[in-house]
Amino acid sequence: MAAESPPSPPVRFGIIGCANIARKVSRAILLSRNSTIVAVGSRSLEKAAAFARDNGFPESARAYGSYDAVLEDPEVDAVYVPLPTSLHLRWAVLAARRKKHLLLEKPVALNVGELDEILAECESSGVQYMDATMWMHHPRTAEMKAFLSDSQRFGQLKAVHSIFSYNSGPDFLKNDVRIKPDLDALGALGDTGWYCIRAILWAADYTLPKTVTALSSAEFNEAGVNLSCGASLIFHDGQIATFYCSFLSNLTMEISLLGENGYLRVHDFVIPFQENVGAFYASANTKFAELSIGIEPAPIEHLVRTDVPQEALMVEEFSSLVRKVKENGSEEIEKFWAIISRKTQLVVDAVKVSMEKGFQPVEVVY
Amino acid sequence: MAAESPPSPPVRFGIIGCANIARKVSRAILLSRNSTIVAVGSRSLEKAAAFARDNGFPESARAYGSYDAVLEDPEVDAVYVPLPTSLHLRWAVLAARRKKHLLLEKPVALNVGELDEILAECESSGVQYMDATMWMHHPRTAEMKAFLSDSQRFGQLKAVHSIFSYNSGPDFLKNDVRIKPDLDALGALGDTGWYCIRAILWAADYTLPKTVTALSSAEFNEAGVNLSCGASLIFHDGQIATFYCSFLSNLTMEISLLGENGYLRVHDFVIPFQENVGAFYASANTKFAELSIGIEPAPIEHLVRTDVPQEALMVEEFSSLVRKVKENGSEEIEKFWAIISRKTQLVVDAVKVSMEKGFQPVEVVY
Repeated sequence: MAAESPPSPPVRFGIIGCANIARKVSRAILLSRNSTIVAVGSRSLEKAAAFARDNGFPESARAYGSYDAVLEDPEVDAVYVPLPTSLHLRWAVLAARRKKHLLLEKPVALNVGELDEILAECESSGVQYMDATMWMHHPRTAEMKAFLSDSQRFGQLKAVHSIFSYNSGPDFLKNDVRIKPDLDALGALGDTGWYCIRAILWAADYTLPKTVTALSSAEFNEAGVNLSCGASLIFHDGQIATFYCSFLSNLTMEISLLGENGYLRVHDFVIPFQENVGAFYASANTKFAELSIGIEPAPIEHLVRTDVPQEALMVEEFSSLVRKVKENGSEEIEKFWAIISRKTQLVVDAVKVSMEKGFQPVEVVY
Repeated sequence: MAAESPPSPPVRFGIIGCANIARKVSRAILLSRNSTIVAVGSRSLEKAAAFARDNGFPESARAYGSYDAVLEDPEVDAVYVPLPTSLHLRWAVLAARRKKHLLLEKPVALNVGELDEILAECESSGVQYMDATMWMHHPRTAEMKAFLSDSQRFGQLKAVHSIFSYNSGPDFLKNDVRIKPDLDALGALGDTGWYCIRAILWAADYTLPKTVTALSSAEFNEAGVNLSCGASLIFHDGQIATFYCSFLSNLTMEISLLGENGYLRVHDFVIPFQENVGAFYASANTKFAELSIGIEPAPIEHLVRTDVPQEALMVEEFSSLVRKVKENGSEEIEKFWAIISRKTQLVVDAVKVSMEKGFQPVEVVY
């Protein structure tokens, strides 16, 4: 009888950069059941030490005054990179080169060319890649997909609409990295449009659109960074999608999915209103009632519970992939996340090009 | 002391055509507190008589074997016209010419040129005009408008999305008047897109868009009648709107309104799920909670009760305008409904032209 294998040790994370989002992901790593934090690096040692202390890191975690020191730490299995987007290429490539598995904050790169360099380094170094798009990992997302895949209740997908916006306020619009052309040049398109585009691709089973056309109402700051935009996406089978993303409108996080036989909507897809339960609303085979007074049946609220927040589930999923690679080698690498990251980035790029070309349709080629 | 004036007699309706929608509007006239039905005309006397009997008309109501006979009935104050769109020009003009006030089913005309002929005849004949867009008259609509007009809770309107679709089924797609080029040549755009476009204009305080661009995913039947389409509308102040309408997708009736400080959504704007209460959902000044875990405050469900269904409120509003004109003369005519009907038709026309021109942007000029 084979002895039971000992439990795998937790995946040991290093964090490079102390951005606000790193607080949420640090909490997620500590909540996750297969991961821990062993190091954090900032350009300032004091800042790194304060971050470790303020975010409940284990006593044994090291604080470093550089990102390099985290990458040189042999006990770091994986790094989480919450740096401004313009720094992703450099630090993601360096991390992969030093055999650190890579959990990369979105938007993952300034363009698909940069992302391809990152992905190529991950492949040649044999490390697992994942972008940090948390909502993908909520069990609600899988339940919604099951509804969309049901030909009786939903059928062919016809039209998708998605919104992610927040009203960032005057201080953000003056000072935040997300509006600085040298730090996060993709602005609202990268920060919020990323989620809408991912939602559209998720709904379309990651089929790419044929063409992407930005709406000519896009807004930019004086430095040319996008503050709001929308686009229409046309797919080969006639399916359409539209989205709107913004730093200048009330916090809103919608996906609306219209199928031949059903309709699904979710109002908090990026960050659930409540941490332990996510709702979505599904209608199937809806008909007008007699005399067209009302409808039947009514939409149904589906509630999906989760003991662990979606961002901790993301960390757990990433770490479980990392463990496989650590135990069985780089043949075990899961390519899915790199592929959908690249597709998302391709559409982000197409929206940007469409805006640059005066809102002309842009073809999307993988 | 002036004596109290006697209560005005009810406005006496004639109905020309026994379409299915006429059943719902007949019920509405009978439910309304200032209107009654005195005549119905069909191309077949038997059909008209059966319609009157089946829909609970007063014993005294006349059934006629022609539309003309209704228009010649001197006791008919107003006519409701549920005929196929291609017949509107002829019968609406004839009705107005015979001094019948006009409640005209939507889409009101095949194009704005036809509508202008109808409106010119209403003006020269001194009759009140209204299109039969029921949801405009639900008290919910006024409450939603109050929210949109609140600069603290909603602020500047940034983006609108609307959907109206229903899965019409094979029999409809083969036989219904709404897919026949000689009867309802506007197809889904006229039948369902009308509501989306009205919603967009309503939200924009009836400002017309600068340009309208149809999405290139539009579907048509073999006779060239539209079965589904979408469009983007760009306004002069940077506001955008998108909509999707269809005969080929599940019954869905959405408006999503995104403002600088707020967000409003309604899921049954065309026909409320329940007849005596309508819901909408409003968010104001929504912020991420600490650590971006959840949001605050949560969206609020607003429930708006109505003792009388929205279509009966429509009839009451129309009849109260008719009474004013009957009592005080044609100077009392309310032009609002003609103006917004014309604006809605202009945008319908622009979407159609955009589709005909290969999905190019089309300017909208009043």
